[in-house]
Amino acid sequence: MPVICVDVMGSDQSPEVVLEGVRMALQKDQELEVLLAGADEFVTPFAKKHDRAKTLVTTEVIAMSEHPANAVRQKKDASIVRAAQAVKAGEADGLFSAGSTGAVLTAATFGIGRIKGVKRPALTLIFPGLGGHRTVFLDTGANADVRPEVLVQFAQMGKAFANASLGIENPTIGLLCNGSEETKGSELALSYHAALAEAAINFGGNAEGTDILGSRFDVIVTDGFTGNVALKSIESTGKFIMSSLKDAINSSKKAAFGALLLKDALKATAAELSGDSVGGAFLLGVSAPVLKGHGATSSSAVCAGTLSAANAVRANLVEKISSSIQL
Amino acid sequence: MPVICVDVMGSDQSPEVVLEGVRMALQKDQELEVLLAGADEFVTPFAKKHDRAKTLVTTEVIAMSEHPANAVRQKKDASIVRAAQAVKAGEADGLFSAGSTGAVLTAATFGIGRIKGVKRPALTLIFPGLGGHRTVFLDTGANADVRPEVLVQFAQMGKAFANASLGIENPTIGLLCNGSEETKGSELALSYHAALAEAAINFGGNAEGTDILGSRFDVIVTDGFTGNVALKSIESTGKFIMSSLKDAINSSKKAAFGALLLKDALKATAAELSGDSVGGAFLLGVSAPVLKGHGATSSSAVCAGTLSAANAVRANLVEKISSSIQL
Repeated sequence: MPVICVDVMGSDQSPEVVLEGVRMALQKDQELEVLLAGADEFVTPFAKKHDRAKTLVTTEVIAMSEHPANAVRQKKDASIVRAAQAVKAGEADGLFSAGSTGAVLTAATFGIGRIKGVKRPALTLIFPGLGGHRTVFLDTGANADVRPEVLVQFAQMGKAFANASLGIENPTIGLLCNGSEETKGSELALSYHAALAEAAINFGGNAEGTDILGSRFDVIVTDGFTGNVALKSIESTGKFIMSSLKDAINSSKKAAFGALLLKDALKATAAELSGDSVGGAFLLGVSAPVLKGHGATSSSAVCAGTLSAANAVRANLVEKISSSIQL
Repeated sequence: MPVICVDVMGSDQSPEVVLEGVRMALQKDQELEVLLAGADEFVTPFAKKHDRAKTLVTTEVIAMSEHPANAVRQKKDASIVRAAQAVKAGEADGLFSAGSTGAVLTAATFGIGRIKGVKRPALTLIFPGLGGHRTVFLDTGANADVRPEVLVQFAQMGKAFANASLGIENPTIGLLCNGSEETKGSELALSYHAALAEAAINFGGNAEGTDILGSRFDVIVTDGFTGNVALKSIESTGKFIMSSLKDAINSSKKAAFGALLLKDALKATAAELSGDSVGGAFLLGVSAPVLKGHGATSSSAVCAGTLSAANAVRANLVEKISSSIQL
């Protein structure tokens, strides 16, 4: 019976959108329990109606625009701060929040704490690929500067995550680079390459930007600067293509009719690319499964994220990362 | 009457595909002249049939798989080597090749030479954006490690290029980063930011991956490592979406009929994203307009690339870069 603490207040959406996602998750997973961190007026009526929901009434909210570290320090009663404390105290086994990335990072890293030996937690996504392949990709933005020994930990955490989430025993690890040849790379990337080649992982060499949505690697690691650029490049390409098609559709009746017939396929592709089927990015390296949803999340993404956090608890994600790091 | 030297042998495609592109370009631009570098059996028959085509008969070819610097040094009669020499000797004003990136880079940089003061040439693309906006993006992969003063030159060259190619007088320059806030960035990105803020350019601050296909900046600069990752992430997202739609189309008659009606719109979007309307990436910083086409080029991309090179000659691209660098 995993208990997931859900930050009801953090997203750009209304608390009602988040709660609707929680309701869907409770329905889909009959063993799930939730602890709802948020304003009394939202969480209490919901908990009265749902057996497996408890409340953590909070009075403050951290807005997307606030300086994350300062806000986490100053707003002791913010939903994300209290949520992290509840996980630390053992009142919940995992955390889902669609709040500001910086606030979730800070609150989770300092409130819940890191797994012993982990130097830096990393934001981790699962990308869809050709032929149904899935690729674990980290760091998508938690750490702009990453030393080689920290990147090796990302590979170890990515390996444990691919094992726990995708059931891959010995995942192939790639290093994101500007070419697949061994000699390619910036000086920093070459130092990453050398460190990964010596680590106790199944290192498959350099990956390219094309491999993130490809099928050559199970896990691709990079620093949070490069990872964030790649993630946002992918997101914006999806948006650009959908917007170009929309323009074409608006300018032609024939195209509009075609789009109507293709609507389901277009929607499915967009959803797959948006990561909504997983519900967000895992913050790997903290002592409980933590999922950070999109700020502009949807109820179905909140549902997916809450379920993903619960499944990570069941799959012993934290224990697997812990053993992987000790090697 | 600009003369463009076209490397007929360099691409993954057959010389016939390249020559068909040249034929299209000669038809579209009645003042264009071409110098065709390649094997006698291909270039001589073509030149006999076309008034404005001359030949540069060569006997060697650099394959995509060869080590670029070694191949350029050893194969004195390779088409790309002889083509660069012809431009250096004034027999042509610009160069188009769809050969191996490394071979084109090496042959052009050392064969033609750099513009006085330019430390490192950079590969430069024009990306489509929302609402018809165009964004100049460099470096897409020529230099993995870039010092701040070199990045400032990329901004100056990008400015001159936006001016010559897109007619933008005072383009807004952005620095690719992992967030739009001034405080975001790796240590390297922060040093780039500081250098750009002091340069005599219209620096608009940090750009994100989402801005490459957006409309906030006219020019976005980055090192060739990050730029290459972003470029390939964008390319692969386009391929992934098209492939996902194809799967959906194959699995449903309704979707297949919809796709038929949307075919023109899908094709136009894919073409816009592939950069085929420009014909490839400009190598800015060498003493003549040099365009590097995709290895898997098409005749229409060769046509566009040859015309783009000719138009860059007419727009005095090299002189504009030279003045921009001197500031």
